[in-house]
Amino acid sequence: MISWNNLDTVASFQELEKVAKVSLVEVMAGENGADRVRKYSAPMAEGMVFNYASRPVDDAVLATLAKVAEETQLTEKFEALYNGEMINTGEKRLVLHHMCRGQLGEAVVADGGDKREFYTGEQKKIEAFANKVHNGEITNAAGEKFTTVVQIGIGGSDLGPRAIYLALENWAKVNNTLKMEAKFISNVDPDDAAGVLATIDVAHSLFVLVSKSGTTLETLTNESFVKDALKNAGLDPAKHMVAVTSETSPLAKSADYLDAFFMDDYIGGRFSSSSAVGGAVLSLAFGPEVFAQFLEGAAAADKTATNKDLLANPAMLDALIGVYERNVLGYENTAVLPYSQALSRFPAHLQQLDMESNGKSVNRFGDPIDYVTGPIIFGEPGTNGQHSFYQLLHQGTTIVPLQFVGFRNSQMGQDVIIEGSTSQQKLNANVVAQIVAFACGKDDDDRNKYFAGERPSSIIVGDQLNPRTMGALLAHFENKVMFQGFAWNVNSFDQEGVQLGKVLAKKVLAHDTDGALKVYSELLNI
Amino acid sequence: MISWNNLDTVASFQELEKVAKVSLVEVMAGENGADRVRKYSAPMAEGMVFNYASRPVDDAVLATLAKVAEETQLTEKFEALYNGEMINTGEKRLVLHHMCRGQLGEAVVADGGDKREFYTGEQKKIEAFANKVHNGEITNAAGEKFTTVVQIGIGGSDLGPRAIYLALENWAKVNNTLKMEAKFISNVDPDDAAGVLATIDVAHSLFVLVSKSGTTLETLTNESFVKDALKNAGLDPAKHMVAVTSETSPLAKSADYLDAFFMDDYIGGRFSSSSAVGGAVLSLAFGPEVFAQFLEGAAAADKTATNKDLLANPAMLDALIGVYERNVLGYENTAVLPYSQALSRFPAHLQQLDMESNGKSVNRFGDPIDYVTGPIIFGEPGTNGQHSFYQLLHQGTTIVPLQFVGFRNSQMGQDVIIEGSTSQQKLNANVVAQIVAFACGKDDDDRNKYFAGERPSSIIVGDQLNPRTMGALLAHFENKVMFQGFAWNVNSFDQEGVQLGKVLAKKVLAHDTDGALKVYSELLNI
Repeated sequence: MISWNNLDTVASFQELEKVAKVSLVEVMAGENGADRVRKYSAPMAEGMVFNYASRPVDDAVLATLAKVAEETQLTEKFEALYNGEMINTGEKRLVLHHMCRGQLGEAVVADGGDKREFYTGEQKKIEAFANKVHNGEITNAAGEKFTTVVQIGIGGSDLGPRAIYLALENWAKVNNTLKMEAKFISNVDPDDAAGVLATIDVAHSLFVLVSKSGTTLETLTNESFVKDALKNAGLDPAKHMVAVTSETSPLAKSADYLDAFFMDDYIGGRFSSSSAVGGAVLSLAFGPEVFAQFLEGAAAADKTATNKDLLANPAMLDALIGVYERNVLGYENTAVLPYSQALSRFPAHLQQLDMESNGKSVNRFGDPIDYVTGPIIFGEPGTNGQHSFYQLLHQGTTIVPLQFVGFRNSQMGQDVIIEGSTSQQKLNANVVAQIVAFACGKDDDDRNKYFAGERPSSIIVGDQLNPRTMGALLAHFENKVMFQGFAWNVNSFDQEGVQLGKVLAKKVLAHDTDGALKVYSELLNI
Repeated sequence: MISWNNLDTVASFQELEKVAKVSLVEVMAGENGADRVRKYSAPMAEGMVFNYASRPVDDAVLATLAKVAEETQLTEKFEALYNGEMINTGEKRLVLHHMCRGQLGEAVVADGGDKREFYTGEQKKIEAFANKVHNGEITNAAGEKFTTVVQIGIGGSDLGPRAIYLALENWAKVNNTLKMEAKFISNVDPDDAAGVLATIDVAHSLFVLVSKSGTTLETLTNESFVKDALKNAGLDPAKHMVAVTSETSPLAKSADYLDAFFMDDYIGGRFSSSSAVGGAVLSLAFGPEVFAQFLEGAAAADKTATNKDLLANPAMLDALIGVYERNVLGYENTAVLPYSQALSRFPAHLQQLDMESNGKSVNRFGDPIDYVTGPIIFGEPGTNGQHSFYQLLHQGTTIVPLQFVGFRNSQMGQDVIIEGSTSQQKLNANVVAQIVAFACGKDDDDRNKYFAGERPSSIIVGDQLNPRTMGALLAHFENKVMFQGFAWNVNSFDQEGVQLGKVLAKKVLAHDTDGALKVYSELLNI
């Protein structure tokens, strides 16, 4: 029997506040520090590890976190979720994104069908379509192959698929599996669509219009923009577009598209990368086999997330250490710092995933809560960030917990030896150095050169960023966010906070304004 | 006579803490809100305005902030800076980036010469070189024109120039002044250089190597990477590279480069976009006339920043309201949210500019301080952010002050009318709606649909993002950060916090490690 309780009513959480705090400067010094690095490491899917030696925990804190996990029934709630319970209470919806990549529990029947069959069926439709595009069965009107795929979507229809495309583009190039270049149009700013269109050859471009409801104003506007461009080039838009939408949307059975691939209300935008939202563009770009590997990596991470043993469940562990840092230690932010240029837009995706899911002030029953919830997420790849905002992270007045990601090998295999080491070694030497510098600091009589340390971080390490590890990495963070939402007793799957702006924007466009809204509208010449 | 005092010893700051707080929900309602939008607006350079109606200030707060400005001698300190006083006390250096774009005060003679002449001389050298590249006097070995310019640099040699290039790329296309496409290589991750090289034609590419000291390991490594690629293509690297460096660096008089353009120690990396660091790549990409317009916009903003009247000095006003939000209201973050896709990387540049400058815990004399300093900066363009992290901004448990930027007109002039409005109107209707939604909130019995409001924001509005407004925008934020550093009594121009990581990374590469550093190194296979 699952019970949903506010975190501050949970006995083990109250206990957690009393457990002695860990000083990273103390515990990370000398051989004890070495022991921690060896010990505080949880295996992840696809051969990766989650190393949390430099997070501010010890056996006592971890034992209490294990009690919190048990008392808040985190794995039971995950089980309920994947078995089809209505976890998104606000919108009264199931939460089934895991099912796009595997059957973790019982069959879930909804809307008159087996949902796993539905999602795999759509992926098979995408596979067949992508294969036809790649082998030249589906071409433009001149019978020429499409060379570019352009995703038109915003938010979850943009950030996740874009981050994953960029993460795997170079890997695909060196593995000879880059079938089509992908581009993305998202912003309602007309310069976004115009700018992208200026860089592509529309005659050889296939557009993927992504909108679950079929009513997202930004996306429909950009679709119209693209259609104009196609028409101006003497092309038939219906021969250059596919739709990814829900079966009930106005786009679903339209003659305006070559084909349509479906998702449903049980997949939230920010969790939709493994559905047709990511599936169409990524299968077209890399081939369906590559997308299938990505799904397998994600499925493997999901399985790990079912483990009831906290220390063997890296997503749950990451989640609860995060809750400890947020609610007991009081840190407001978390930085995501991948030491991999290919992950340049992964922090932007996690920013949506985390902040839109857990940036809430009411619990899942709609009652105000008295504790803080989701942190602010930001980040850039290392080593670039070191030459940018790390100054504040090291010596500023605010402590920011850090999530590093690193890989032993590069994707493209090209390198250069300077001063006795490769670039890849330099990259990784830097992340190692940063972790220790943040944790241990450095004493100095010159206070301007003094580092207080005590800056927490963890690192996820893999052999190489490829489709499988990318899938596992994505699922790790999706599951982390889910577990944190369970712990905070919030609904991580709705987003009522986006509604007010939409309503007011409509008023502005209708010139139905007064007061500040009216004068601001004049200022912007609307 | 200037005196440098900690903020908490300043009488007017202590007074500030006692001034009645402003409730945005109250003051932004009805006609009072409309009056505020009309009144709380400061003219900026290049026809822009800084509107701060939705920041948590009123006449009483502003009057006290004006006292703080006077008591902390903000404009006097700026005057001292541009007249050549040694403001960067930590590194014992002058701070002269303003002089790249104008002579605000007295002539400054240093290193045996007039510094304004030095900076303009370098810009003239760049102009002559760029013109020769554009008109075909300088070509590759086959006598063909260079079509692509690639900046190799990291941190300030990357983020600012890259953000500005992206900001003006589409503007330049429609104004027929895009002379060369620009690319950027920054990360020591070998996949960064390899990835960029895979997208360009090296035979027609000119590389700009940017390192003030000539010793930045990332940059030298990437130079070597690029040289290998040139040699492998049978090309002479010395015919494809220029250097931007200091006159005393090992790169300065090397035969390895077609030409060298100089900066000096008085220009910090993050403030170097208007020096040769930005000048070379931007003049090559857009033509020197466009870069000159950018400098004129920045110079105009600098002039505005000399105004002693707080209400007529938008950079100083933005700075002090920020200090009020940070030190009196306790907000830890600031989000930069441009409603312009072209400004997609401007937040990343401001992240460095602000966090590296003011993320300090000691005052300019090296003594620990007892108050918080620079906030954490993050941001993405709107409307994209609305579909991502705005949920937390509206309904999360943490309040984040927001800095919006908007333009009345698009850059490319292409648009589409859907539901009776253009995309540009939709874009701007959204930013207006967001400002009011954040400030005023919305009551609702359903607490999940309730918005508390009280989220502060300001907006900078211009007619169009072009070289002049881009220059003014950049200078606004540079000067804001400078004024905040003065108010906090920190040295905004050094970055000792980056040193420890460098030292430890060298140890790791030399295998001179023990304890945690050694075991982490093993984990990453170094």
